[in-house]
This record gives sequence, C-alpha cells and structure tokens, in this order.
Amino acid sequence: MGKVYLTRIEKFNSAHKLWVEAWSEEKNYEVFGKCANPNWHGHNYTLEVTVSGIPDAITGFIVDAKELSSIIKEYIVEPLDHRNLNLDVAFIRGLMPTTENLVMAIWNQLVSKMPEGCALYRIKLHETDKIYAEYLG
Amino acid sequence: MGKVYLTRIEKFNSAHKLWVEAWSEEKNYEVFGKCANPNWHGHNYTLEVTVSGIPDAITGFIVDAKELSSIIKEYIVEPLDHRNLNLDVAFIRGLMPTTENLVMAIWNQLVSKMPEGCALYRIKLHETDKIYAEYLG
Amino acid sequence: MGKVYLTRIEKFNSAHKLWVEAWSEEKNYEVFGKCANPNWHGHNYTLEVTVSGIPDAITGFIVDAKELSSIIKEYIVEPLDHRNLNLDVAFIRGLMPTTENLVMAIWNQLVSKMPEGCALYRIKLHETDKIYAEYLG
Amino acid sequence: MGKVYLTRIEKFNSAHKLWVEAWSEEKNYEVFGKCANPNWHGHNYTLEVTVSGIPDAITGFIVDAKELSSIIKEYIVEPLDHRNLNLDVAFIRGLMPTTENLVMAIWNQLVSKMPEGCALYRIKLHETDKIYAEYLG
Amino acid sequence: MGKVYLTRIEKFNSAHKLWVEAWSEEKNYEVFGKCANPNWHGHNYTLEVTVSGIPDAITGFIVDAKELSSIIKEYIVEPLDHRNLNLDVAFIRGLMPTTENLVMAIWNQLVSKMPEGCALYRIKLHETDKIYAEYLG
Amino acid sequence: MGKVYLTRIEKFNSAHKLWVEAWSEEKNYEVFGKCANPNWHGHNYTLEVTVSGIPDAITGFIVDAKELSSIIKEYIVEPLDHRNLNLDVAFIRGLMPTTENLVMAIWNQLVSKMPEGCALYRIKLHETDKIYAEYLG
Repeated sequence: MGKVYLTRIEKFNSAHKLWVEAWSEEKNYEVFGKCANPNWHGHNYTLEVTVSGIPDAITGFIVDAKELSSIIKEYIVEPLDHRNLNLDVAFIRGLMPTTENLVMAIWNQLVSKMPEGCALYRIKLHETDKIYAEYLG
Repeated sequence: MGKVYLTRIEKFNSAHKLWVEAWSEEKNYEVFGKCANPNWHGHNYTLEVTVSGIPDAITGFIVDAKELSSIIKEYIVEPLDHRNLNLDVAFIRGLMPTTENLVMAIWNQLVSKMPEGCALYRIKLHETDKIYAEYLG
Repeated sequence: MGKVYLTRIEKFNSAHKLWVEAWSEEKNYEVFGKCANPNWHGHNYTLEVTVSGIPDAITGFIVDAKELSSIIKEYIVEPLDHRNLNLDVAFIRGLMPTTENLVMAIWNQLVSKMPEGCALYRIKLHETDKIYAEYLG
Repeated sequence: MGKVYLTRIEKFNSAHKLWVEAWSEEKNYEVFGKCANPNWHGHNYTLEVTVSGIPDAITGFIVDAKELSSIIKEYIVEPLDHRNLNLDVAFIRGLMPTTENLVMAIWNQLVSKMPEGCALYRIKLHETDKIYAEYLG
Repeated sequence: MGKVYLTRIEKFNSAHKLWVEAWSEEKNYEVFGKCANPNWHGHNYTLEVTVSGIPDAITGFIVDAKELSSIIKEYIVEPLDHRNLNLDVAFIRGLMPTTENLVMAIWNQLVSKMPEGCALYRIKLHETDKIYAEYLG
Repeated sequence: MGKVYLTRIEKFNSAHKLWVEAWSEEKNYEVFGKCANPNWHGHNYTLEVTVSGIPDAITGFIVDAKELSSIIKEYIVEPLDHRNLNLDVAFIRGLMPTTENLVMAIWNQLVSKMPEGCALYRIKLHETDKIYAEYLG
C-alpha cells in the first residue's frame, strides 16, 4: 500500500514589490517591469499544502485536516495575510518576495511543524491565475 | 427585440489600505480590521464591464470586443494595475479604495468613453473570491 | 448617484433528500429521480448574499463586510453547515429542501437582520456547478 | 411572495468564424481580426438558462431540473455541440455567430419550449473566460 | 519518447459522516468535529482519474476518453452518486469515508478495469474547494 | 536545496476534428464519435508550461515570467490561437490533434527554447473542463 497525499488550501492577500536596493531605478524597471512600482502592488495568494502518509486504520485520516489548517494559519496565513511581504514578515525578511522564493520560505517554515504520522510533501503557491510555483524540498 | 448585454472581463493587481487620517490607529483597526495594516496589502481584482445595445445587422456586434477591451485597458487597467490605489491613481485620489467606491469610480471613468451604438450598463468588481460589488449608475 | 450592490460569498456542506411522505416510493423516484435516495445525498453549497446601499462618505462602506459575514454565519452557515436539511434545521423544518425553497427561506431568515444603512437585495445559492437559484423577495 | 429564478448550466464545443461574404479579405480582417481566420477556430461555450416561477407547494420545484436539462440538450446542445456554427445548424443559418447573436437565437429557440409553470427569463452565454453575453427577450 | 498522462474528470454528490461506533459521542465530536453530525452532511465530489500510455500512431489516443468515462461512470459514479457513503456502497462498506480512504478505494476499484494500452496512474478527489487527496497506488 | 517549479498559464482558441483519411466515414464516427464532424468543432485550450530551476540569489527568479510568457506566445499561442489544428499549423502538420499528441508537440516545440538557468519540466493542456493531458518528456 502506497502513501496518500492530502492537500489543504488556504488564502492570503498581501502587498509586495520586486526591487533591488543596489540597482538604479532604471535597472529595476528593466528587470522587474511594473512589479517594481515603488508604492507597491498586491495579490490574492492561494496556497496548497500537501502532506503524505498512511491513513490511520480507525479514523481514516493521514492528518486531522482541522489541525493541518490551524498549523498553516498560525505559521503562514497569520504572518502573511494583509501584510507587506517586503516589510512586515519576520521569516522572509531580506528575501525578494517572488513566488519562487515564497514557496521555499513557506516550506522551510512548515517542514518541522507537521503533525505526527504525516510529512510535508509539496508547497504550491498561486500568485495570479497565470502564475504558480511548487517546491518539494 | 430587446437589448443584448455584452460583458468583457479584465484583471489588475493592486495594493491598498483602508485608513482614515483623521482617526486614531485604534479606531482605524476597530473599523477596518487587518485592512488597516499601515504597510498595505493587496488583491488580484477581476473587473466585469457590461454594455448594452442592439447587434449590428451585418457584423452581429453591439460593440467590437477588442475596442471595448482597449478602452478598459487605457482608462482602468493601465492606471490601476501594479499600482497603489491610495497613492498612485489620479482619478481615485482622496477616495477610500473600498470595492464599493471603486465600482462607482470605474463607472464614472468609463461612462462617457463607450463606443457609438452601445451604453455602459454595469460595473462588477471582485476583490477576493468572497467579495464583489456592482454599480449600474 | 445610484445604489451600490455588495455581495458576500459563504459556503456550507449539507445532506438532504427530496421525498414526499404522502407519495409511494415509485412516485417519489419518478418525480425526484436519484434525489429521492432514502439514505440521503449531499452538496457543497455556495451562497451569495447581496445587499444594496449608498457608500458612507468616510468609510466607503455600504456595510462592514466582516459584520455581514458574521450575520450570514450566525443565521445561515451555523445552522446549515454539516447538517441534514430535512431533519436538523429549525427554520426550514417541513420545507422540501430544493434550491428554490432554500433561497426563499434564507431570504426570509436574513431580511430583517441587515445592518443599518443597507438592505437585502438578492440571495443566490449554487447547489452544484450546474444549478443555482436566485430570489429577490 | 416574489418569483424564484432557477438556472441550469450546460456546455458545448463548436467551431465558427466571423466573416462577411460581401466584404474583401482585408476588410474582414480589419473588422474581425483573427476571428476571420478562413479555416475556422472554436470555443468551449458555457450556457446558462434561467427560468422564473413560483415553487410548487409540494415538490418545491419551479421546474424539474432534469426536464429543463433535457429541453436544453434537445434544442440547443444537440444541434450546436461539436458543430460548425456557420455551416451546420438550421436555426442559426445565415446569422453571424457572434456571442450577441447566439444569445438571441438561443432565446428564440427556447422561449416557447418551457415547461408549464415557468417562463424563460434570461440566456447567458460565455464564449471565453473574458467574454459573455446576456439576453432577456 | 516518454509516457503521456491523460486525465478525465467526473463528479458525484454524496452524503456521509465520520463516526466510530466503538467511541462515545463525545470522543467522536472531539476527533471529527462537525463531520460527526449523526444525521449526515454531504459534498459535491470532483474526481480526476489519470491514466498513462503511449499515443496510438493512428488515432493519437492513449485511451478513448469516451470509453474511460464509461468505465468511471459504471464503477465509481453510478455506485457513489446521490448515495450515502457509509451505508449504500458495496465496495467501501465498513470503510471510514474520509477523502484519504476514498482515493485508495477508488484506485482499487479501477486499477484492473483500465482499457488495453493504458495504465491507471493517479486518483485525485476533491471533497471541497479546500481539501483534496491523491493516490498513486 | 531542491529545485523550484514555476508554471505559466496561457490560453488559445482553436478548431479541429479527429478524422483518419484512410478510414470510411462510418469507422471515423465509430472511433471518434462527434469529434469526427467534418465541418470541425473547437475548444478554449488552457496551457500550463512548467519550468524548473534554482532561484537567482538576487532577483529571486528561476526565469523572468514575462520572458517565459513571450516565448510561449511566440512558439505556441501565436501559431495555434484562432487557427485550425488540422490545417493551419506547420509544427503539427500531419499529426492527429488529440490532447495527447498536442502536449508532446508543444513539448518538442518548447524544450530547446527555454531561457538559460531553467529547464522545461512539464506541459499540461486542458481541452475542456473534463479532459487534460500532461507530458514530461
């Protein structure tokens, strides 16, 4: 019997910009386009957290989805939702808030917090309905 | 023969906050909750612009959808996309950027720009997948 | 200046069946098809509650969306979510739980609960992604 | 007690082009852009058929949704699905197959076919996820 | 040349509850929360069945999607749709109907029924728009 | 540190039919059903292009999403959008335009065009909301 993968989806809404301090304004706009707007822009992010495990013989759970949701809310949604990703969030301070960097940071934040009996398998983050990133550690 | 209603959908991503300068920080948080975060947050907005008219006997169009799209992009998406709705946009300066105020402002911006033969009927704006506002003038 | 319409979306998951006690099993299956299954079936319902009003000159709100959400949760989601629509819910007891009857019942439940300054305008309820009902009072 | 509106959603996939025989190729491309491609293009259409009525006191139905679905399939989906809208469909022959013209043609096709006790209220047709048309007769 | 993966999506609507007979009501509510409601609740399930194979040199198919759909309907949708997952379905009798257990049961039901030339690769089942499970055997 | 996977989504609308010239009309309809309609039908295709790489230490990008989008538009969307997949497209000429064959052809078209620092990982193509194919080379 192989593993089962369970995914919980949560959402958050944040502001950010893509900007390298060491670069000129001209170079920032050349590389990041309108994402470099100095007064920020923002997104409705959709986060998919996937864990793997063997369903418990009695409960049929690999994880209690309510508990998984609470962990995601405590460590990810609470610090990121209605925040500025460049300024407000301790665990991504100094990190360029691209979708690629965010999936790695969210993975690193969650990987040691998983409930007993399941393991973090994949982080998937949708920035818009045209872009998403995935990370499997 | 009644009118036909044609809707064109466009998207933009913006930062904003809800904050009354004349109020204390405490009152701002009491009224606006986490939307008052001083460093902004943001959304993927989905805009639906509906026009009404009688289809042309030859083309079958009430409006050329490419022309309608160009008008929406010039007057709405270009000024709002990847911008800060409190700071960056001339036609909503001084306006609290709630979804309610935005649909009225977008209506006022577009109502006189419609191509000949069709009339603006409705503006619908989705701020998240749980909130949208509509305005019919 | 016309009214603005603001819609808040909430979800609930319920069991139900369509069955007339006074009819034979044969007639129930003839009229209701597989919806008559005696051991119930269920749906993920998506509810859209639309209110109308004039945005406040300071806050830009016709209604505080958090307060509207709390009202919907207290009077609709709490009693209906993870419940049996034929057995468990006081305000629809004795009502055939079709989508048509549910939108009217939800309207009647909410119409007197709206916050000052806004009025209930429309209830829309999606039973599946192929069926929805609307009621405007 | 007001009317209830019930909507049934069905889908079909068709080919078409926008082309006026009396015009030059140059003028066709100028007016219709890439929609004038002589070898056709196509869409996944999503059709929403809305009827209005008073729910039956016993069944709670304004219409049997299975019967409504059968009517839509017989008169609309069967003739349009996996067909060429310029060439294959008797009830739109000679009509430019724009979304605007299609909603009127579908209305005219369905308005006299409604089951007793309900009336056709609105036809809504999505051509892509950026364009839809509505017709209320 | 590697394998191609083809996915067919089907839907079903069912009632269920999460309840261990050997436990007290108190413990059932503690573990399963509102999913333990004795009178059931239900969901619109969305099922994705993925098969893998090499496209046929003439037809371009790894599987006839109509045949794949018929198999899914016969072995999965027909027994589960508009049914009670705790009471009505032979192939999951005695199984706690969590999303995790359902993907394994659906895999076991389908794995030997695949048409010649393709193999079952993955079962994905969405219980709500916030939870889905996957199983690859 | 593992790879990050970034996906860009683009859309195109095309006509096609499934038809083997060497076969009788009867056999074509038997194998391909209504997809064999001689006057074509069509779809709104949704294409997901996934690349893998290590985020750049300064920009946080594995690829500039605008550049990736330009490549997809030049090599895939431009030749396929508003075209006939059996007649109009050089890089799939002679290929049966099933979803299975299209994902392989799109992979082959894109695999050598990826920007430095990232590699093509997966092509996913949705033909309707009930069918999609994936190819990983």
